[in-house]
Parts: sequence; C-alpha cells; structure tokens
Amino acid sequence: MNRVIRDPIHGYIEIDELITALLDTVEMQRLHRIKQLGFSYLVYPGANHTRFEHSLGTYHLINLILNRFTVRWEEEQELRVAALIHDVGHGPYSHVIEPVIMKYTGKCHEDIEDMLYRHTSDESSHIADVIDEYHLNRHEIMDYIKGEGKGAFSRILNGEIDVDKMDYLVRDSYYTGVAYGVVDNMRLIQGLDFIEDQMVITEKGILPAEYLLFSRFLMYPTVYNHHTTRIAQLMFARAVEYLIESSQSPRDYALTLRKMDDSEIDTTLRNAKGYPKEMITCINERRLFKRAFYTRVSSLDEHLVEELSDDARIKELELEISKRAGLDVGYLIMDCQRSMGELEESEARVFIQNEIIRLSEASELVKMLSKAFKESCMIGVYTPAKYRDAVRRAVEAVL
Amino acid sequence: MNRVIRDPIHGYIEIDELITALLDTVEMQRLHRIKQLGFSYLVYPGANHTRFEHSLGTYHLINLILNRFTVRWEEEQELRVAALIHDVGHGPYSHVIEPVIMKYTGKCHEDIEDMLYRHTSDESSHIADVIDEYHLNRHEIMDYIKGEGKGAFSRILNGEIDVDKMDYLVRDSYYTGVAYGVVDNMRLIQGLDFIEDQMVITEKGILPAEYLLFSRFLMYPTVYNHHTTRIAQLMFARAVEYLIESSQSPRDYALTLRKMDDSEIDTTLRNAKGYPKEMITCINERRLFKRAFYTRVSSLDEHLVEELSDDARIKELELEISKRAGLDVGYLIMDCQRSMGELEESEARVFIQNEIIRLSEASELVKMLSKAFKESCMIGVYTPAKYRDAVRRAVEAVL
Amino acid sequence: MNRVIRDPIHGYIEIDELITALLDTVEMQRLHRIKQLGFSYLVYPGANHTRFEHSLGTYHLINLILNRFTVRWEEEQELRVAALIHDVGHGPYSHVIEPVIMKYTGKCHEDIEDMLYRHTSDESSHIADVIDEYHLNRHEIMDYIKGEGKGAFSRILNGEIDVDKMDYLVRDSYYTGVAYGVVDNMRLIQGLDFIEDQMVITEKGILPAEYLLFSRFLMYPTVYNHHTTRIAQLMFARAVEYLIESSQSPRDYALTLRKMDDSEIDTTLRNAKGYPKEMITCINERRLFKRAFYTRVSSLDEHLVEELSDDARIKELELEISKRAGLDVGYLIMDCQRSMGELEESEARVFIQNEIIRLSEASELVKMLSKAFKESCMIGVYTPAKYRDAVRRAVEAVL
Amino acid sequence: MNRVIRDPIHGYIEIDELITALLDTVEMQRLHRIKQLGFSYLVYPGANHTRFEHSLGTYHLINLILNRFTVRWEEEQELRVAALIHDVGHGPYSHVIEPVIMKYTGKCHEDIEDMLYRHTSDESSHIADVIDEYHLNRHEIMDYIKGEGKGAFSRILNGEIDVDKMDYLVRDSYYTGVAYGVVDNMRLIQGLDFIEDQMVITEKGILPAEYLLFSRFLMYPTVYNHHTTRIAQLMFARAVEYLIESSQSPRDYALTLRKMDDSEIDTTLRNAKGYPKEMITCINERRLFKRAFYTRVSSLDEHLVEELSDDARIKELELEISKRAGLDVGYLIMDCQRSMGELEESEARVFIQNEIIRLSEASELVKMLSKAFKESCMIGVYTPAKYRDAVRRAVEAVL
Repeated sequence: MNRVIRDPIHGYIEIDELITALLDTVEMQRLHRIKQLGFSYLVYPGANHTRFEHSLGTYHLINLILNRFTVRWEEEQELRVAALIHDVGHGPYSHVIEPVIMKYTGKCHEDIEDMLYRHTSDESSHIADVIDEYHLNRHEIMDYIKGEGKGAFSRILNGEIDVDKMDYLVRDSYYTGVAYGVVDNMRLIQGLDFIEDQMVITEKGILPAEYLLFSRFLMYPTVYNHHTTRIAQLMFARAVEYLIESSQSPRDYALTLRKMDDSEIDTTLRNAKGYPKEMITCINERRLFKRAFYTRVSSLDEHLVEELSDDARIKELELEISKRAGLDVGYLIMDCQRSMGELEESEARVFIQNEIIRLSEASELVKMLSKAFKESCMIGVYTPAKYRDAVRRAVEAVL
Repeated sequence: MNRVIRDPIHGYIEIDELITALLDTVEMQRLHRIKQLGFSYLVYPGANHTRFEHSLGTYHLINLILNRFTVRWEEEQELRVAALIHDVGHGPYSHVIEPVIMKYTGKCHEDIEDMLYRHTSDESSHIADVIDEYHLNRHEIMDYIKGEGKGAFSRILNGEIDVDKMDYLVRDSYYTGVAYGVVDNMRLIQGLDFIEDQMVITEKGILPAEYLLFSRFLMYPTVYNHHTTRIAQLMFARAVEYLIESSQSPRDYALTLRKMDDSEIDTTLRNAKGYPKEMITCINERRLFKRAFYTRVSSLDEHLVEELSDDARIKELELEISKRAGLDVGYLIMDCQRSMGELEESEARVFIQNEIIRLSEASELVKMLSKAFKESCMIGVYTPAKYRDAVRRAVEAVL
Repeated sequence: MNRVIRDPIHGYIEIDELITALLDTVEMQRLHRIKQLGFSYLVYPGANHTRFEHSLGTYHLINLILNRFTVRWEEEQELRVAALIHDVGHGPYSHVIEPVIMKYTGKCHEDIEDMLYRHTSDESSHIADVIDEYHLNRHEIMDYIKGEGKGAFSRILNGEIDVDKMDYLVRDSYYTGVAYGVVDNMRLIQGLDFIEDQMVITEKGILPAEYLLFSRFLMYPTVYNHHTTRIAQLMFARAVEYLIESSQSPRDYALTLRKMDDSEIDTTLRNAKGYPKEMITCINERRLFKRAFYTRVSSLDEHLVEELSDDARIKELELEISKRAGLDVGYLIMDCQRSMGELEESEARVFIQNEIIRLSEASELVKMLSKAFKESCMIGVYTPAKYRDAVRRAVEAVL
Repeated sequence: MNRVIRDPIHGYIEIDELITALLDTVEMQRLHRIKQLGFSYLVYPGANHTRFEHSLGTYHLINLILNRFTVRWEEEQELRVAALIHDVGHGPYSHVIEPVIMKYTGKCHEDIEDMLYRHTSDESSHIADVIDEYHLNRHEIMDYIKGEGKGAFSRILNGEIDVDKMDYLVRDSYYTGVAYGVVDNMRLIQGLDFIEDQMVITEKGILPAEYLLFSRFLMYPTVYNHHTTRIAQLMFARAVEYLIESSQSPRDYALTLRKMDDSEIDTTLRNAKGYPKEMITCINERRLFKRAFYTRVSSLDEHLVEELSDDARIKELELEISKRAGLDVGYLIMDCQRSMGELEESEARVFIQNEIIRLSEASELVKMLSKAFKESCMIGVYTPAKYRDAVRRAVEAVL
C-alpha cells in the first residue's frame, strides 16, 4: 500500500516507492529551503511555503490527469518524475535573482540535465541514483520538463495551461490569504482531452480555463507584482549583482550562488561588507526603499514607452535620474515591468465544433484579458525614504 | 482608518499605528525567519509558518477578547503590545535547542526585559524606541508576557487557557493539514467572563474548552511529538551542544546562538567541521537517525519508570547502551518524553453554579485527558540506520 | 451582551434584541421554508439553503459596512432592519414563478409596505408589531429596500454593488460547491467610501469589484441558468400558470399563491388534477423535459434575433413548433434568455483621480464583461424525451 | 467516462450508469425533500441539507474504502448500491416521529425489502426496476443495509464505525457551522484493515477513531440534542400522534404518514383542525414551548433515576404534573433522554499487537467517553411560555 503525505491544498497525496526515493534526495530536500514566493512574506505574512510542497502538488495534479487516460507505463513514470523534480534547477529566490545570474552564466536555471547525471561517492542520495535504480529515461524526463516531450502530454508540465500553474495559483492564493487564485482544478482536468495526439480543452473546460486566466490576471497586481515585494526583490538583486561583480570570477561565482538555498545566500550577503550587507540588513529590518514614482507604463507618452522597451535605455535613464538627485549608484532603482509577459494560456488549444482553435479565438474574454494584462504593466522608481523628494523632482525633470 | 493584514487563519487583522510601528522593528522582523514548528516540515511539508504570523494572530485574538469587555485604555494597550511581542525572546528553533542553551545561560529565552530597554544609535527601529515614543509601561508589558500581570487579564497571554495556545493550535493544524486543532475560538471567547477580578470559563465555555484540551491531546502525538520531528530536533540539539562545548566561552557563545535566526544557526553548523556539520547535513538531506527502540514509558517496568525520571540516569543509560553497541558519542540518542508536561488547561477556573472551581473538577473528560496525556509519553532510542540492529540488542541487554 | 448565530458563510453573526424580535416574526420564519435557489438542488444536491439564512447574511454585511462609517443612529437601525427583511415579499420559488404571478397581479413581489402595516389579533408576532414597538420609520425602511432611500446608503441594499449580491454570490457558491463565487467581500468593503453623499468605489476597491462582476458572469451559465434547473423552473411555472388560468378569480388566486411557501405550493400542485399534477410529479421524480434545441441567441440569424426580442412572437413560434410536432399545449417550452439582463454593477460609481466615473469607464475588463454577458444568452426548446426527435425536426423547419 | 456531481463536503463524487439510474428513481428523489436534521434549522439556519446528499456522500465514502481493497465485483456493486439507498425507508422528519409511527406499525422504517420488489406500471422509475435491469441481488443489498451482510464488509454500512456516521458527522458539522464534527475520514479509512474476514482498526486508525467518537460526543449536546430542536421535535411528534389517534385506522394511517416527505406531512398537519394545526403553526412561527425544568438525569435522586427508566412511569409523571399545573393534555411535554444511547463505536474491533480487542479496551479515552456519554443525558419539562411558572411549581412538587 502506498504512503500518503498531507498537503494543506490537495489533502492527501499518495506516493509510491519511486517517489519516496526521489523525495529523499539531496536535490529535492534542498527545495524545502527555497521559498516559493521569495519576499512576498513582507506583505502576506503567511506566504512562507516552499518549492518542495509546490513540487509535490504538481506531481499530484499530473497523477490526477494520468488517471483519466490510458498512458504507456514508461511515459507515465517519466511524467510523474518530471513533475516532481521540475523545479530542482532553480536557484535561491529564483524569480528574484535569476535574471542577474543569467547575465553571467548565460542559461536559465541550473542545467537540470547535468543534475540528472551527477553521482557522488558519499552517503547522500541523488536524483541520478534513483533514475539509475529505476531505469528511467533521462532524456524523456528532461524533455517533459522543458515542455518538449513526445506525445500528447508534451506541454502538460510546461505549456499554455500546465499543472505547474494549476498548483501554484491555488497554493499561492491559499497562503497569502488572497481569494483570487481559487482555480477549479478538478473541473479543468475534467475538461481536458486529447485529439490527434495533442492536449486540447473541450467545451466543458472553457469556463474553468477562463477562470484560471482571470486568476492569474488578478494575482499579478495583488501578489506577484505587489510593489513592496518588487522593491525588496530588486534591492536583493542589486546586492547580489554587486557581489558577483566584485568577485574574481563572476561566472563561477554566479554558478555557486545559484546552487545555494535561501538561507545560504542570505548569510553570504550578511557576511559581505558594504552595499550587499546594507541591503540585506535593510530588507531583514523592513527598511525598504519607497516609491518616488509609480504609474502604468501605458499612461506615459508613446515615445517614452518605446524607449522603455530597451533595457540599456532604462539603465541610462536610471543613471541620469540618480545623478540629478545626487545619489550614489545602488540607491535608486528603476523598475519597468515591461517584461511581465504574456498570458500564454490564451494560446492553449481548444476543441470546439470539430475544430481545433486557440483559446483566445474561442473566448472574447480571454482575448481581452491578454490585452489588459499587457497594459497593466507598471513603471516605478524606488529609493530610500529620505531621498524620495529629491528623486521625485529628478524623475519629473528627466521623464 | 486602520490598515489590515491578511492572515490565512483569521482572515483580516486590523492594525493601528502603534502596532504597525512595532511590526517594523528589528526584533519583530526577525520572527519572520524563525519557523513556528522547527523541523515539522520534514513530516508535514506545509508546516513552514513563522513566529511572526503566530504573533500577529495572538495579537488579533486578544483584540477580540478586549472588544467584549470594558478595559482601562492603558491596560488595553499594554495587553495588545504584550501579545504581539510575546515571542521576541525566543531563540532559533526555539523548542528544539532552548533546553541546551539554558544549560549554559541559566534563564529561559532571552530576557525580554533587556530587549525592552535596548536602544541603538543606528537607523534600525527597535521595540524600545516604540515603547518610548508611545509612553508605554515596560513593567506591565513584561508582567503580562510572564503571566503575572495585574488584574483580570493576568494570565490571558500565558496561563491555563491563553490566546497563545488558541492561536497556535489552529495555525499548526492549518499548515500541517492535520484536522485535530480546529479549536472553536469564537465560542471559547464567548464563554469567558470575569468574576472577582479573575478570568473564568462560564458554563457555555466548558464544551469549547474541553475541545481545546482534546485538540492539544491529539496534536501532541500527531504533530508536536512525531518521532521523525523529534529525531531531527535531537540531532540538531546535539550538534549545537557540541558546538557550545567546543567554544572558548560556552556561556557567551550560547547567548550568541540564541540571538540568531534559523538560517544563521543553520549556516553556523554547516561552517563548523566534524560532528555539527555532519548532523546538519544529515538533516538537510533527510538522512535521519532511525528508531531502534520506541515504546510508551508507562509500558515499562515500574522501577525503570522511576529511574527514567532522573535526567542524569538517562544520560548514564544512553552511554551504557552506546558502549555496548560500540558507538561513538553522538550517534545514539535516548529520548524520554517524561517532560512532555501537563495539560495545564485543566487548572483553568470555571464559574458554575455560583462557585469557582477547577476545570478538571467540572469536567470528567478533562480529568481523564490530563491523566491520559501523562501516560502517553514515549521513550525512544535513535541511531543511524546502519547501527540499528546493534543498538536494538544493546537496548534489550540494558533495559 | 448580544447573542450570536452561527452561519456557515460568515462564521458568527451578532444579533441584538431588535433583530431577535424580527427574526421571530411570522414573516421572517416563513423564509425558512423558501429555498434560495429553487430547483438548483436537481443539479447541485447541496443547494438547499433558504432565504432566511441569506437575509441574516445580508444583515451581517450591512453591519460590517456601517461599522466603518459614522452614521446617524436612526438611519443605522433602518438600514439594518431593511437588510434583514428585504426578501419577505418574495413568493415561493420566487425567481421561478414571479413573472407568471405578475401577469395577474401587476406588481413585483408582495407589496412589503402592506406587510409593514399588517397587524393581527392572534398570538403570532408580526414585523409590523416590532416596527411599532421600536418606533421605526416604515417609509425609510421601505425606501432602502427599493434602493431609493435617502443619503449615501441609498443603494447599498439594492443597487449596482449591493450587500444582497455580496451575500448571495458567496452563499450560492458555497452550497453548490462551485468555486466561482468566492467574492472577497472584506476587501470590497474596505474599498467603499462616500464622496458628496454618494457611495463610491475607491481605487483600492476596483479589483474586488471586478472580481465580483466576474463571479456573477461565471455563476450565470454554471448555476443560475443551468439548463436542467431552467427546465424544471419552466415546467413548474407552466403548471402554476395553468392553475391560475383555471381558477375563478385569477388575480386573487395569484395573490394567494404568492403568500405560500415552497411546500404549500408544491402540495397545491400535487392536489390539483391533470397538467399541474403531472408537472410536479415529473419534477419530483426527475423526469424532466430534455433539450431538443439549445444554442446561443447570438449565433442565430440577425432577423431571428430581432423577432426573439418580442415576447408575443416567441409564444407564436412555440405554438407553431408544437403544432408541427403534433404536441398538446404545455409539452413544449421555448426558452429565450433574452431577459438575462445586465451586469448592473458596471454602472457603479468609482472615485478615481478626483473624479467620479462609472465602473465600466474605469475598467476595460468590466466594459467587456458586460458585453460578453449579454451575448451569452441561450435559446432552448424543451420537451419530454419521447418527443425530442419530432420537436427537433419541427424546430429546424420553423427557425 | 463517469459523470461527477459536486458536493460541498467531498468535492467531486464520481457516478457511473448504475448509480445514475438509481439516483433518478422515485425513491431516491424523494430524499431531496427530507431534511437530514429535521428542525435543527431553528437553531442553525444553515442546517437545511437533505438525506439525498447524505446518501451520495455515504456512497462516496464506501467507494473510497472499496478502492483500497480487492473485492469481488458483485460484492462491490451490492455494497455501493446499499450505501446509496440505505435511507430510502426513512419517513419524513425521521428521527422525530419514527418512535410514534412505530407504536402503530411495529417495525422500524418502511421495510426497504418491500421497496426493493415494488414495481409499478407507470412511467416512473423505481429502485426495483434498476435492480432487475442490473441483475443485482436484493437479499445481499438488504443484509448490508441492516449490518448483517456476508464477509468482511458486513458492518461497514451499519455498525460500530460505519460510513453512514462518517458522512453525517462531517456533513452536519459543515452545515450547522459547528466545528466539532471534522472527522478525519481519510486517515480513518487508511487505518482500516481486514483480519480473519472482519474489519478492524489498525494501530494507525486508533487516533482518528477516538476523534470520531469525540466528535459524536460533542455533537450531541451541541446539535442533535439542542433543547430548542428537541422541543420542536416533540411538539411535532405529539401533533402527529394526535392525528393518528383520531384516525379510523391508526395503523394504516401511520403507514401512510411514513411514506410522505417533509412538506406533505407539514401540509397534513396544517390542514388538520385543532391541536395538530396549532402545533405546526407554533413551530412555523417559532413560538415554541419553553423549558420549565432542565437538568442532567444523573443529578437527580437515585430512586428517581430508576423510575425514569420506565416509559410508562414517565407518562404518569407527565400527567401528574400537567394536572397539578392545570394544563390540558398536550401542553406539557416531559422529555427524558434516557434513550440517547450508546457510543457503539466503542465496541469496534481493534487489531493491536496481534490481537483483536474492543476499541474501549484499547483506549482509555474511549472507555471514558462512553461512560460520560451516558451520564450526559438530560431531563426536561417543556410548556408554553405563559404556563412556565405554574409548571415549575408543579415539577418541584412532584419530582
């Protein structure tokens, strides 16, 4: 008989021997020490959940889907494993500092593939050991994680509408206490089907899919892009960048940082001198930068909007405002959420009246939400409270 | 108008300027980095909640109670502050290593009183600053935290049935996903009254009070004393003890450790060599000691039960078994939960038929639970998996 | 001290003497016997909640709002009473048969005003008695119920965004088990304010208001207009119409029916002969008409859409199809949801950048939802299963 | 693919063709019109749930259990059917008037066995039709309902710890808003096993079983035996008794009443003259009898306790008090909960240390709860408010 693990979101999650073995590896256990939402706890004190529980939840949802269809045994195993380990390549405070790390390492997250091969001679158990023991196919697992696997389930883990999102929306909603993420996963799963070897949403699934999009739409301004969280994230990212820049071998150091967990990178910053130590102390004592300027990108002049689509230009503007306000580098942060991205769910395939079309074609609501989503990006300029007035004046002069 | 903070347990928590100022102090912010349940996440992956949110919840419950009675304004302020800050003296992994720390420092927790006076010249905000600014009475606050305050609310924060318990039972229950802690706090609060300047439970409050006791009774074996959590705690505590012993000034070092947060003490152990590093690595990789022996204390021979009531004797037995099994010190842990303690709720005062009596006199159930609670203590002997058989034989020979 | 009543939605609801007296009247107790959602239990077995609990919930929400503002004492009492009794004029299965009743009586619901004056000499307690005893102003109460009261709270009970909707969306969502109605009432209430003596939504309230609209948008197709529920409703309404038509004094009989509760009108239909008895038996045994035709109104030819905007024309079409399919009157029902109505929330006033505008102007999403809401109306033709094929052919010939 | 039905308690309940066919029978649909908790809505306005949803929930729980074991296909079908239909023999307001009905009919509930054979020539679908169509074994189904089936699952539907209780405790708890019934069904199910062809609780199941008992223990005084509900029930039962007594053929009339649903028996009482009409009107207008006397049976003199164990003697005492207070028959009700019964769960079998023993032997708590349960029976004397003082004096004189 299988063991069960309690989960506040999904109730009981059943695990078998393979999954138990994977949970007990070094790589999975590290996820206990990486918060799912980084600094969101500064706004929502309950948001302390980890990538470990999210991974379990993602695994559970794929199980529910696999139970509804006839799937080749090997494929089923690979999908379950892929769902469970899909986040092991994440660095600490992943969403926060990944862009900084990538500047130096040139690839996103740690290459999980390396990890799938890594053995050690010590007593620790690694994912690679379990994969060997159970004769699993590394390449297939890797492809599912990237959303490039074979067959109908190709994008179930990483695609338009995937189990990753389905877990994190509900989970983040639960722990923040924000009602908006209550996606109806069961109904969505009941509304999935496979046509011509691709996963599609049936008519029955359109409503829950619309709801999932709407949830994401509301979670962004309320949780993911809450300005207080953004400010802490950016202060932290700058501190990390400073640290990498001052190291002898930035690329190696960036790689080292990515392998840490949240507490290790915290300690590293605290043990550093100067700017990094100052930033982590400010965050830990909740003395955060304040908003000197904050508005919708879409409310700015058109020519400015265009300028802001260029990262280099943003850096220049930041520097210009800093100078005019008389500030040292690092005490003014310009944040342009241009990159908040798409509601990629709108590209999901829908099977309706014997045709496969895009969700955005099937649903006026979805088309509109995608548009509104892009338009809701904010631009902010953040600085310590005492410089706020000076910065405000400088922003007005420059923008 | 007051601000609100969302809390997954209580919904919305209202805070005014004073409370906001306190939340933004160094001392309160540190509680974001101390888990409420230490290593329980190893069994219940959702149990990552912190002392910060628990403190907010405790404050919220005292507010609900204060709203029901007419209380002097100063008293009300002191009680609200005391509830909010009652945990700031806790060390990292408090329940885990406090006994070890106390061996060297001689008092429980950091003396909060010191903290209430501590000012610094830096930009950080401290509790002492807020207390000065709002002209609050340090002594009264301190007394309420100790459960020795004046007046009817003397033990509302720290007593038989207090808001501390009322918050943590529900909160721990929620995050672990264990149903047992769903105390009916609203009904309990409705069942409180004040007679002759002491808080009593009225007839209406007896049922919810019985329920609270029963919750605690069930939460102990299921969560608080789950053997896996216990094992991780004890491995950690031994590592800390080793570290203190090897330091030049054990007392000072113990005091330093207590001021850390969870991640700082983790890092300290990892940076150490030898036994402490080994222990923290084992915990982080979930390679925990296993149970070689595990039974109810009450099922042992009477003379043995008596022996086990003596800490020094337990140490001796542990050593004896270690030797017989051929183990180095630190690789065998004997755990006798003798100290699991009382269900002190049974001593709460009940007002019934114009008389004030003890809850255990008013309720057969409570009397019985208190008895059963004491009898459910376990004794365990833990060791790495590979030594389990050897230890089992040694235990049989010695006990 | 006030009494409390438990409510699965809002937890504890406090009531004082006035409210207790009102709850114990004949008129309020009758609401225990009127289901909030009529025949929805045929699809959602949990949907058995009553107008009584909804009335209590509405009262509770207005209390939460009143607590946030300074309101004249009399106004506060009137608003609380109005919220509690706002539904007492409803007939049994209100939404189902009110249109039928109105054809004969000419006004919507029973005139609550009559009720506010009605005294009887018996032992029963009536709302009018309580109003006298507490010297409340009937006219003001009546005006608040109609959404025409004086002052800033004029439309809080019956307007664009009102406490009636705020309660029923969450309540209906809870009992049906449909996740979509989880409106964040607390955040919405925090986002209300009063400018120039009218209630407005502040910037902070826009998101929860959008969410409320979206909830209603999803609850319509999922719950309120679910085809199975619609079919049962229409069968029932036809049976009632038949009964009224065959009575000697249709107007008086319609008035009598409206004063009944759900079980009384059920029994009346069962005790009748012929068609009404047949219909109620079919509903009670779940032998419902089936859909012979079902599509979006907006998918039809334009000229047809225009025709369908005329009630008389719909009746003609129904007759024509019946004849062609060879059916007796009453065994074919044509249902055109043209009347599903507006999302009147979009007309709510928003205060933003020092201006008061409509919510639909402030929010692209709201504008779009209102449009999509109108376009989602369905047209259906329902008939007993055995006639389905014949009716299908007839519909194709006629439409 | 199976259909799903939403249930507020269990989420989604899967049903196949057989179950769908059963749900659509006359007998099952009638359960939509029978409230699970009778008059509890007078105290808990949310308690309007029906035996229909409870039946679905019971079916769902047995499914969860069957999924965990290998069961013969026929046995599985019979158990699923038995769980779904186990309540179809119940009369309206079952717990309220069954004792009265039985006085005249001599057997408990309608004989479901009759029902399993009853065919009609009309269009209605009956359980008997479905049983024929699917070639199910009537006797086996009947035996499972009675708790006398063959094999290991003999008492799973009707025994010490059964799925009936497991559903209703959680369901009643949910709709009343009383926290006490939150039984951990999943953990309990995980703790069941089969030894020597009988169902046993394993060590792992003891805690959740204790919890279930405790829940029942608390639900009795809080919900099931709440004095207001008891009073309404007894007023109703007396009205029904009066009606039966005045009929020409009491036995036949009692059988007719049992076949009704809640609304039919309500209407019957309202259409009667005199006492029955008065009682139902009082209940509907919430003008209930009040407590003139109310105490624990165990607090009375021993000789009185013995007298009260005799039903005839209670009737005599009631009459004596009535006379002394000058009341007509029917306006004074003496209610002795002597019959509240046992916590039969304590007799459940537990498999522990290779032995099968009773739960009450395995658990001190359970032994104690059973005892306390019996001792918590109340005795009450109820009468209209205006006679309360007179009755009080009469009670004092007589008891």
